[in-house]
Amino acid sequence: MQNVQDYIQKNKQRFLDELIQLLRIPSVSADSAFSQDVIDTSEAVKTALENAGCDTVEICETDGYPIVYGEKTIDPNLPTVLVYGHYDVQPPDPVELWNSPPFEPVIKETEIHPEGAIFARGACDDKGQMYMHVKALEFMVKTGQLPCNVKFMIEGEEEVGSNNLGVFVANNREKLANDIILISDTGMIANDVPSITTGLRGLSYVEVEVTGPNRDLHSGLYGGAVANPINALTKMIASLHDENNHITIPGFYDKVEELSQEERAEMAKAPFSLEAYQNALDIASVDGEKGYSTNERNSIRPTLDVNGIWGGYTGEGAKTVIASKAYAKISMRLVPHQDWQEITQLFKTHFESIAPKGVTVKVTPHHGGQGYVTPIDTIAYQAASKAYETTFGKKPIPQRSGGSIPIVALFEKELNSKTILMGFGLDSDAIHSPNEHFGVWNYLKGIETIPYFYHHFTEMNR
Amino acid sequence: MQNVQDYIQKNKQRFLDELIQLLRIPSVSADSAFSQDVIDTSEAVKTALENAGCDTVEICETDGYPIVYGEKTIDPNLPTVLVYGHYDVQPPDPVELWNSPPFEPVIKETEIHPEGAIFARGACDDKGQMYMHVKALEFMVKTGQLPCNVKFMIEGEEEVGSNNLGVFVANNREKLANDIILISDTGMIANDVPSITTGLRGLSYVEVEVTGPNRDLHSGLYGGAVANPINALTKMIASLHDENNHITIPGFYDKVEELSQEERAEMAKAPFSLEAYQNALDIASVDGEKGYSTNERNSIRPTLDVNGIWGGYTGEGAKTVIASKAYAKISMRLVPHQDWQEITQLFKTHFESIAPKGVTVKVTPHHGGQGYVTPIDTIAYQAASKAYETTFGKKPIPQRSGGSIPIVALFEKELNSKTILMGFGLDSDAIHSPNEHFGVWNYLKGIETIPYFYHHFTEMNR
Repeated sequence: MQNVQDYIQKNKQRFLDELIQLLRIPSVSADSAFSQDVIDTSEAVKTALENAGCDTVEICETDGYPIVYGEKTIDPNLPTVLVYGHYDVQPPDPVELWNSPPFEPVIKETEIHPEGAIFARGACDDKGQMYMHVKALEFMVKTGQLPCNVKFMIEGEEEVGSNNLGVFVANNREKLANDIILISDTGMIANDVPSITTGLRGLSYVEVEVTGPNRDLHSGLYGGAVANPINALTKMIASLHDENNHITIPGFYDKVEELSQEERAEMAKAPFSLEAYQNALDIASVDGEKGYSTNERNSIRPTLDVNGIWGGYTGEGAKTVIASKAYAKISMRLVPHQDWQEITQLFKTHFESIAPKGVTVKVTPHHGGQGYVTPIDTIAYQAASKAYETTFGKKPIPQRSGGSIPIVALFEKELNSKTILMGFGLDSDAIHSPNEHFGVWNYLKGIETIPYFYHHFTEMNR
Repeated sequence: MQNVQDYIQKNKQRFLDELIQLLRIPSVSADSAFSQDVIDTSEAVKTALENAGCDTVEICETDGYPIVYGEKTIDPNLPTVLVYGHYDVQPPDPVELWNSPPFEPVIKETEIHPEGAIFARGACDDKGQMYMHVKALEFMVKTGQLPCNVKFMIEGEEEVGSNNLGVFVANNREKLANDIILISDTGMIANDVPSITTGLRGLSYVEVEVTGPNRDLHSGLYGGAVANPINALTKMIASLHDENNHITIPGFYDKVEELSQEERAEMAKAPFSLEAYQNALDIASVDGEKGYSTNERNSIRPTLDVNGIWGGYTGEGAKTVIASKAYAKISMRLVPHQDWQEITQLFKTHFESIAPKGVTVKVTPHHGGQGYVTPIDTIAYQAASKAYETTFGKKPIPQRSGGSIPIVALFEKELNSKTILMGFGLDSDAIHSPNEHFGVWNYLKGIETIPYFYHHFTEMNR
């Protein structure tokens, strides 16, 4: 690959400025207050793809936020890479915990990022990682080194479950036809320990509502005499894990893929310091399912976590009230072979069945998706591995991630395509958290590595 | 008692208008945003006491909100009645559940209040019931029928624990010296079943904070590998009750007063319809401590309720996050002989001890107070009973209340005075809830009954 590093050095400042502009738009898909910003972001992505050299770019309307589609075809006989990414971001709250405003990007040095990191919501997840592909395309087109065809599909609803992407993909199989799907929406182990994500967990996200009396009650006059919806909710949630932190929902583990001792031993080779992990989070101890290591707990095992809970008086001071309703948002991370819709139904049936007398329960599924595992014996994986080897100077480690990109399984089903997850972020980048950031070095290293994947993938397909 | 009913009929509209003016001021003591309104309310009460005929009225500053003190002495040799009440109110939220704005009082007829009820925060608790005493004084003074001396002590911090009243009382024993304390801050069974509250529960109100990782985390990357503070909090709260709804805090029941079968049989005679109770609250079943009736559960038994809980993402849509912190406000209602400070310490020690590994716990006591039981063989109780008999046409039933007025025990300790709890509100008046109201009939009946208490109490003291 000619002069990719020169090109990056020459255009470094512009690459950063362009990303920062994109990060200034608060494209929070979960909150309708930001809907115009989400739409504005889709327009910005369209312009960026045009400037990078796509022949055609279109805003594809859906029942939700639009999908930006772009393509550059140089020869129908050459392979086609489909790049997927998303331009929407997680809500920034709790905003008070950010050291700088989430939508006013700043570059600051950190211990892990001595060359600086861009602090902003979406810096890593996924605007920064998505934009690496736009700039990699620019390089290949401007220097006449694009070796194959490329298509882009950038959506605006990934953080809220990609509800409309499935329909779009099913209705555009022809248009989206490809030989490999490339996604950068995951991480790697460390800047000196490159890794490629080979597994993703599935997801089932539900909201529960527990209702007791038809109005808030005085806790003195009614306390102890009627079921308190908050106490009931805590009892119900607590019962979802047993003393070994196994999930108690009947049938929950029935289809869980059990890895062999060999596979687990292989996983255990990935560098990991429990002490460093605990220190980074300021926790005295990790906790999780008995019989599994930390890396297994957040990758090959399914989990259940409360993501939010609320009810009663949460203001300043004291209010002696028994709330009429209590709520929680609960998500389950699933592993290969667990079907998210089946798990959602199992949860609903079980949760409704454990409601104590005196309260009623409503379970509302939010969204979900299947888990996924990438085979590592494919041309695509080998091409990606070679690309990393070229730019990082060492072979990347295949790694299961605990995160979910529900649509990867969908792509395989609808488009019959495999996906390569080339993530350049780090766990410490605080995605979904206050002070999310993305290393400048990582951003540029991604732009440098991606063209090598195109090159090797095309060569190996000859 | 001469023409009390005529006087009330003649001044009915003014009595209502004056109360409505007082209810328009949002004197929410729990929320500092309303501090000026709370202070304005103290001024309004001062003016009302002056107009009603007090000789001297003063605003007594404290470290918190002021206490309004007024008195009228007609003869040092006659008995003195001390009226206690509070001019602060509970927060109105959830505001969206009010049918009319909480601080824009309206009079509407209800099934239970065919003559109309005043809907507003504080209508019953306690502005309405406190103001009955002001208007009763006006009647006695204007018609020359005040038979004894009277003192008023109206505070502005009852809904947040009366933190500064104790100091004020301890520093003003002389000034507050009295023969009986009269309080209308409780309820009665029904308009045709008058009752006098003879017992109050104590209270311990705490706030708990559970901290896990030092920042919010992505639930996919960390889910199942680190303790989730919300899950931990639900487990801890759930463990505070066993399967019989007994509270599991070691030592919690050690000093609980156990009533005899005779006393419980006596209590059971109070008219009560479980079906009507459940229908009024739209619940299929009551729930509470095994082995006790509904009326026992909310009066002679101690209880523990979560009054508020919050943590993680509670906004629109979904956010896959593991929160760094989770919080709850928890209150315990106590019965005679349980010391609230001792119980608070027992809670703190126990709650901190059950924190699962991976999280830390902070318990912050908010406030509390002791329970109280009024003897019914005193002149004061007999005088009150006679007063009700005169105006309701039937003997009132002595009744234990589940509520707490922590300062009643304090008065006995500091002033060596007994308290008579003449409440004219109903359980259905929704105090501490949206759409709090106070029956017009109840308001006027209180104004009519109070002077008879003064009369009988003075006569019986001769």
